[in-house]
Amino acid sequence: MKLLRDKVMTEGIVLGDQVLKVDSFLNHQMDPLLMKEIGREFARRFQDEGITRILTIESSGIAPAIMTAMELGVPMIFARKHKSLTLKDNIYVEKVYSFTKRESNEITVSKKFLQEGDRILIIDDFLANGEAAFGLARIAEQAGASVAGIGIVIEKSFQPGAGLLQEAGYRVDSLVRIASLENGTVSFVEEVHGQ
Amino acid sequence: MKLLRDKVMTEGIVLGDQVLKVDSFLNHQMDPLLMKEIGREFARRFQDEGITRILTIESSGIAPAIMTAMELGVPMIFARKHKSLTLKDNIYVEKVYSFTKRESNEITVSKKFLQEGDRILIIDDFLANGEAAFGLARIAEQAGASVAGIGIVIEKSFQPGAGLLQEAGYRVDSLVRIASLENGTVSFVEEVHGQ
Repeated sequence: MKLLRDKVMTEGIVLGDQVLKVDSFLNHQMDPLLMKEIGREFARRFQDEGITRILTIESSGIAPAIMTAMELGVPMIFARKHKSLTLKDNIYVEKVYSFTKRESNEITVSKKFLQEGDRILIIDDFLANGEAAFGLARIAEQAGASVAGIGIVIEKSFQPGAGLLQEAGYRVDSLVRIASLENGTVSFVEEVHGQ
Repeated sequence: MKLLRDKVMTEGIVLGDQVLKVDSFLNHQMDPLLMKEIGREFARRFQDEGITRILTIESSGIAPAIMTAMELGVPMIFARKHKSLTLKDNIYVEKVYSFTKRESNEITVSKKFLQEGDRILIIDDFLANGEAAFGLARIAEQAGASVAGIGIVIEKSFQPGAGLLQEAGYRVDSLVRIASLENGTVSFVEEVHGQ
C-alpha cells in the first residue's frame, strides 16, 4: 500500500534494529484519512471471504479495525488485556506474551459476541512475533468460529510471526512488509504483484 | 441523538443504580455505522469551533474519536494509561483516578503532538465523575492549547462529572444524558431543544 509505505518512509523513526516508531500516524497520534484508506484496503483484500466479524485487541488495533468494519458493514470486537483474572465466567481467555514489555497478559472476549460459524478477520497494527494474533485466533476457534485471515498494518518480516502464522495455516495479509531496520534504514520486502 | 438513545434502550443492561453496560455496541463490540453517526454528530456540534486536534484516552474513546477526527479532517491523539512511570521525558503526564477500578493511573501524551494554540476537542465514551476528562484537559492546557469542548457519548448526569466540568468553564456536549438508572430502568434527561 503505497500511501502507507510513504508514511513509514517520511515519518517512521528507526530505533535500533528491532523497533520502528510510528506514533505520529498509527499508534498514538492517528491520521484519520490514512486509517480510512487502511480500512478500505483490508476490505478490498478480504471482500470475498464472507467476513461476519472483525476481531482486534486494545488499543492500537481499534482504529484500523473499526475502519475495516465500517467498509465491510460488520461488527468489530476488541479483546481486552488484563494482568490476570480471577473471574472467568462467560469470557474466552487466552494468554499472550509481549516480547516488547516482557510480560504475559490475559486477553479476553465476551462469549456472547462470537458465534459458531462466524468468519473472523483479525486486524492488528503490528506483527512481530505473532503472539497477539495467535491469541486472537485461538479465541475465535474456542468459539467455533473460523479465522478467514489476519490483516496487519505493518509486518516486521524479519521477525518470526508472519512465518509461524502461515505455517499454522492462516492467511496473513500485511499492508507493508519490512525486511530490515538495520543501519537505521527501513527496507521493504519487494512486492511481486505491485501494490 | 435518537439512534444512540434507541440503542441504549434496546441493548443497554442496567447493573445496579450506577452501572450501564453497553458492551454490545460501544465498548467491547462496536457497531461501525453507529460509530460513524456518532462522529458525524460530534463534528456537527463542534464544526464552528476551529478544532485542530481530537484528544481521547485508550481504549473505548478511540473509535468515536477517530470517527470524529475523520469528519472534521484533523488528527486524533489518544492518551495512554500507565500504572506509574519513571521516565517522563518529552511527555505530558497527569494523574487520573478511576472510581470504577479504584486505582490511580498516569495518563500521558507525547509533547510533540500538542502545540500551543491548538484547539482541542476531547472525546470520550462515558462521563461519570469527570476524572479522565479533567486529566485530558489539563494535558491540553500544559501544552498551551485551549479546550474547545468535551464531547461525550453517554453522560451519567446523576454523577458529578458534567457539573464539575461546566463549573470549571468547559463546554460539555453529550449525545445522550442519563438521569437515573434506578429500579433497573434507564431514564433520560429531558432535552429541551429536541435531538
